[in-house]
Amino acid sequence: MVSDKFLNLLYLPLTVYYYFMKKYRVGILGATGTVGQRFVQLLKDHPQFEITSLAASDRSVGKPYREACAWKLSGAIPEYVREIVVEPIEPPLECDLVFSSLPSGVARESEEAFARAGFPVISNSSAYRMDEDVPLLIPEINPAHLGLIEVQQRKRGFSKGFIVTNPNCAVVSFAPPLAALDKQFGVEAVFVTTLQAISGAGYPGVSSFDITDNVLPYIAGEEPKVEIEAQKILGKFVDGAIEKADFTVSAQCFRVHVIDGHTASIRVKLRQSSTLEAVFEAMNKFPSLSLYSSPKNFIEVCDEPSRPQPRLDRDNGKGMTITVGRLFPDNIFDYRFVSLSHNTVRGAAGAAILNAELLIDKGFI
Amino acid sequence: MVSDKFLNLLYLPLTVYYYFMKKYRVGILGATGTVGQRFVQLLKDHPQFEITSLAASDRSVGKPYREACAWKLSGAIPEYVREIVVEPIEPPLECDLVFSSLPSGVARESEEAFARAGFPVISNSSAYRMDEDVPLLIPEINPAHLGLIEVQQRKRGFSKGFIVTNPNCAVVSFAPPLAALDKQFGVEAVFVTTLQAISGAGYPGVSSFDITDNVLPYIAGEEPKVEIEAQKILGKFVDGAIEKADFTVSAQCFRVHVIDGHTASIRVKLRQSSTLEAVFEAMNKFPSLSLYSSPKNFIEVCDEPSRPQPRLDRDNGKGMTITVGRLFPDNIFDYRFVSLSHNTVRGAAGAAILNAELLIDKGFI
Amino acid sequence: MVSDKFLNLLYLPLTVYYYFMKKYRVGILGATGTVGQRFVQLLKDHPQFEITSLAASDRSVGKPYREACAWKLSGAIPEYVREIVVEPIEPPLECDLVFSSLPSGVARESEEAFARAGFPVISNSSAYRMDEDVPLLIPEINPAHLGLIEVQQRKRGFSKGFIVTNPNCAVVSFAPPLAALDKQFGVEAVFVTTLQAISGAGYPGVSSFDITDNVLPYIAGEEPKVEIEAQKILGKFVDGAIEKADFTVSAQCFRVHVIDGHTASIRVKLRQSSTLEAVFEAMNKFPSLSLYSSPKNFIEVCDEPSRPQPRLDRDNGKGMTITVGRLFPDNIFDYRFVSLSHNTVRGAAGAAILNAELLIDKGFI
Amino acid sequence: MVSDKFLNLLYLPLTVYYYFMKKYRVGILGATGTVGQRFVQLLKDHPQFEITSLAASDRSVGKPYREACAWKLSGAIPEYVREIVVEPIEPPLECDLVFSSLPSGVARESEEAFARAGFPVISNSSAYRMDEDVPLLIPEINPAHLGLIEVQQRKRGFSKGFIVTNPNCAVVSFAPPLAALDKQFGVEAVFVTTLQAISGAGYPGVSSFDITDNVLPYIAGEEPKVEIEAQKILGKFVDGAIEKADFTVSAQCFRVHVIDGHTASIRVKLRQSSTLEAVFEAMNKFPSLSLYSSPKNFIEVCDEPSRPQPRLDRDNGKGMTITVGRLFPDNIFDYRFVSLSHNTVRGAAGAAILNAELLIDKGFI
Repeated sequence: MVSDKFLNLLYLPLTVYYYFMKKYRVGILGATGTVGQRFVQLLKDHPQFEITSLAASDRSVGKPYREACAWKLSGAIPEYVREIVVEPIEPPLECDLVFSSLPSGVARESEEAFARAGFPVISNSSAYRMDEDVPLLIPEINPAHLGLIEVQQRKRGFSKGFIVTNPNCAVVSFAPPLAALDKQFGVEAVFVTTLQAISGAGYPGVSSFDITDNVLPYIAGEEPKVEIEAQKILGKFVDGAIEKADFTVSAQCFRVHVIDGHTASIRVKLRQSSTLEAVFEAMNKFPSLSLYSSPKNFIEVCDEPSRPQPRLDRDNGKGMTITVGRLFPDNIFDYRFVSLSHNTVRGAAGAAILNAELLIDKGFI
Repeated sequence: MVSDKFLNLLYLPLTVYYYFMKKYRVGILGATGTVGQRFVQLLKDHPQFEITSLAASDRSVGKPYREACAWKLSGAIPEYVREIVVEPIEPPLECDLVFSSLPSGVARESEEAFARAGFPVISNSSAYRMDEDVPLLIPEINPAHLGLIEVQQRKRGFSKGFIVTNPNCAVVSFAPPLAALDKQFGVEAVFVTTLQAISGAGYPGVSSFDITDNVLPYIAGEEPKVEIEAQKILGKFVDGAIEKADFTVSAQCFRVHVIDGHTASIRVKLRQSSTLEAVFEAMNKFPSLSLYSSPKNFIEVCDEPSRPQPRLDRDNGKGMTITVGRLFPDNIFDYRFVSLSHNTVRGAAGAAILNAELLIDKGFI
Repeated sequence: MVSDKFLNLLYLPLTVYYYFMKKYRVGILGATGTVGQRFVQLLKDHPQFEITSLAASDRSVGKPYREACAWKLSGAIPEYVREIVVEPIEPPLECDLVFSSLPSGVARESEEAFARAGFPVISNSSAYRMDEDVPLLIPEINPAHLGLIEVQQRKRGFSKGFIVTNPNCAVVSFAPPLAALDKQFGVEAVFVTTLQAISGAGYPGVSSFDITDNVLPYIAGEEPKVEIEAQKILGKFVDGAIEKADFTVSAQCFRVHVIDGHTASIRVKLRQSSTLEAVFEAMNKFPSLSLYSSPKNFIEVCDEPSRPQPRLDRDNGKGMTITVGRLFPDNIFDYRFVSLSHNTVRGAAGAAILNAELLIDKGFI
Repeated sequence: MVSDKFLNLLYLPLTVYYYFMKKYRVGILGATGTVGQRFVQLLKDHPQFEITSLAASDRSVGKPYREACAWKLSGAIPEYVREIVVEPIEPPLECDLVFSSLPSGVARESEEAFARAGFPVISNSSAYRMDEDVPLLIPEINPAHLGLIEVQQRKRGFSKGFIVTNPNCAVVSFAPPLAALDKQFGVEAVFVTTLQAISGAGYPGVSSFDITDNVLPYIAGEEPKVEIEAQKILGKFVDGAIEKADFTVSAQCFRVHVIDGHTASIRVKLRQSSTLEAVFEAMNKFPSLSLYSSPKNFIEVCDEPSRPQPRLDRDNGKGMTITVGRLFPDNIFDYRFVSLSHNTVRGAAGAAILNAELLIDKGFI
């Protein structure tokens, strides 16, 4: 207990330090949606960012955010954004960078427009994820992919703007442990079966009539995304391009009755045999970063037989930790385990914010 | 429409026929539990069986069923059993056969006692499933295994009694399509990930605090059962014993927030290549039987992208049909699909009743 | 048991009788919606009606029903309607009467058009419920209100067509016990708090994100409806008009996480004091009718302390019985109780079908 | 935003102040239960309390807390209690006061034992709530009731120990707005219908099979508690005793499918007429206290039509604010509204902690 209290005291200088950190002005594209609301929530006390612009579809333009947005997160809309008037999704906006949670349809055009206008675009949309010259970034895994920014700017004729994306929320639930294993033992093949939360479908999203006392065996477009994104994320940046990792992913995606937190059931075949302990360590010790939103543990492997569980573990590391459990040798492949991540934090808004923190740290912003 | 009405008319002779069918007196062991209640519900208008004895734990003995049983199925307790006084779980009972839904602990001893006392024991318990001389029966798949009854009686010194079991409810959700594929193409390996309903845990079973807005990645003892039972079910009866099928099953089992209906996510590797159409047909055309509880289709393969769903498809064929969907070529194994069955009907009480109907049909009762 | 089987035999002549009953051709307006689907399901084997026309919005017109309709009820779309081509919502349709489950906006105009074109319109829409010359019908309670039909035809210049409505689904959950009490003791005031099912909002209706782990304290427009409809239903038909019953209703309406079945928490103040037994009898013995869809008991009062429950009791009487429980003296008003009805059967499609059966029985069709 | 950041800076001295506050050593009786876990969670960084003893039933005694307790709250068991060895529920314990969340059966005897042994017992159990000489405390409403402590010690022969209780969790959801109205206008009668969360039943508590797609109309013993506790809470302390408030409460209590957060549907009859504005103000401006766990607003009246909602509003004021909404004139009584509180925070552990803070503030500890 004492140590705890003492810890609190230690935070004081940190708080002061944060207070005097440089602030970047942030714009949010698609500010009224589920992920947009998460951005607003997560940026509330962020030491490096302050929201100066909120952009959304015409329906919302001109209204104060409190009116334009049907707030669906716990508590009331944060004071500091209530009166911000929603602007159209067009550059310029009064800010230093934009976070985008636009539907992929709109995203393709709008994000390019902002990048061309000189804005760093940190996007959660799927529109550019698989473009050869766009980083599909998980800071702990493939920071080297930021090398693509220069390639992208040259190729697309962007002056100082650029687009960086984060992976699909389902992929995020298992790519980290996969990266840990690939790095040390090499991954040859992966079977993944996802049990995905309803918040992944946005709002109104899944009808209660469809999911109550039920499971949906189909999420439009999801299985292909899950099968291709991982190879790019785990790929190597070589002479200005990404060499995709050469393992195969087979995905079946289900929607289950959970609010937040995607669970993935995994079997993996490794190129190089290894002990259970080594596999445990490879994941559990995979280094986290020291950015503001970085969790203490990037991957946390628990050994209680009935964990991870979405409701109990999705908020580990403030929603930024990937929790792994049920790690056992498999009787067909090498190992099986269950992996969980918070789909609207580590899988969406939180991922983009961490990406922005890395971009600042590396001097791209 | 007309045809519909005409059909109704055609049922008349059938109803008369059923009315005059021979009736067997039935006892139920574990009559007050979730599965016991299903037996009572499913046997209500059954033409071949009439419940004459209800047996349960000491707590219930001596009470009329309506008092002893906390009825959890739709509607009130059927009139015809309300006043039956619950008896202890000991032979003899005033009946021609017993259905058992005893917890495996109790089952081992009690079921043997009834068999030794000359009663056919049709059991849903896991106690004897893997015993070499006990049939693990799915009538459409392995009726030949009834040959074990004679072996069993000889070995255990049973005069006319015997024990026949039905598989674990999770296994039932995918063993039928597997049998269809194994028969025609040979199965080499199977990855199965189950999304199981709460009713599988009995009552009170899963706490609402554990499963609401949640998924449980662990069901005690389930994964091993799922991995071993299928080989026995699909095995061959040769010289008085079962030669197990030689494929490997890897299982991960989850509890999801569904009342009834186990969903299985499957990838299968075949010994002999085949077209998607052939696989579809092999499953969809797998023959059903003409017993009273047999569904029109044993396996029904649907092609709507978002089916099967537990709430919409668990009652297909009055809960006795296995519904398959999302059948596609897999990019690691040969094929992937989703399979669904009603865990307390086809996976428990209904399975046992169908087993009893087969035993009568084959002259074992 | 024997009696049970014997009963089955007794049904034979009834089946024959039903087979030769006169068939009325039925059209359904709004056939693809939640209630529309219930009509299709409930009319499947109905002896008096056969669906000949399915009408829906332009989006669906010209498509076979199986394509136009996203079927959300258990099992597959009934064979007999799969290929019926959806027609526009305009008279004439090839039928003898129409059931309407149109949204009230559209209903006002379309239902009048059909009535004017000579069709009996049995409507579940709210559009005409409170019109002075339109019966708000619950066959067991106010059949005399059918006297309004003649008034309506004269006033609106309908030749043989007319409009009859059934009450709002929430009102149906408590109007019947109220009628029973009003008839014998007189009702002075009623506090009702409803716990309403998600199916009441249609499809997609309530977002799973809104109702999971939650309660919604507001249903648009519901409380006023609940407060005014009961007086009309329990009113008297005197010289061509309805004299409304003179009690006051105070309603608070909640949406809870239940699929089907509206629960109402009731406190009632009577004009004339009475014993608990008398109140119990007044409700429990309130006569049902002998129409095809009439349940054995119109109102069923149960005394188990924890009933009625939506999932266990909504299907009583095939969804047409009102189940009452928790009947006790109240410490402010006279009595309190809990009342439950199936909102899409007795509260919607089933109510309209029963209304049609009464209209035929009384010679209005 | 700036103001926000500035605020953070302002907290610094506060943090320092908290750090140097006097610490009281705390014991928890019933530490492994649902409420016991809440105590552990809420006391984690509490500036005035540090947990030194955890007591639970024999089953747990001697085990480290992490083993004895099946932790059901978000995240892992807090570090600082993991290794504390669970002690038996008997005085003495190494602490300055005890919090009790014992089941009322055990509570009656054990709490008296601790009080007699000189420990202040701050209890969440129902055992002593209605005893004449035991305060039923809500600090913002009836701090004067602490006068009973002296009476209690004299009467029971306690030297320095005593028992103080907090109300039933359902009562807490509406007693505060009631107190606000009673103070200004006088309350004559109240109809309350509660929609209570599953966590109120403890763990395992409500079976998922009972509450999924369902509502339970009965909670054992709840309605009487709700009907009698409010009068005591709102009573006056006059010459060493509580004069109960003279209004009548009629309660119907339902269990709904919500994890945390009790919702109450209220109609109230006032002794003195008043405007809607006055009623709004009376509740919204009811003063909070300046204790550590006091929320900024004790009662928060919102005017969005669809609030309060358990999932969105239960955490207002860190779970210590009562959120009121849907305030309207009623057509039978004077006003109707909906009131919500977090049942395991403001309705249990948080309530007891606030009581302890008041007791320290008033010099009783």
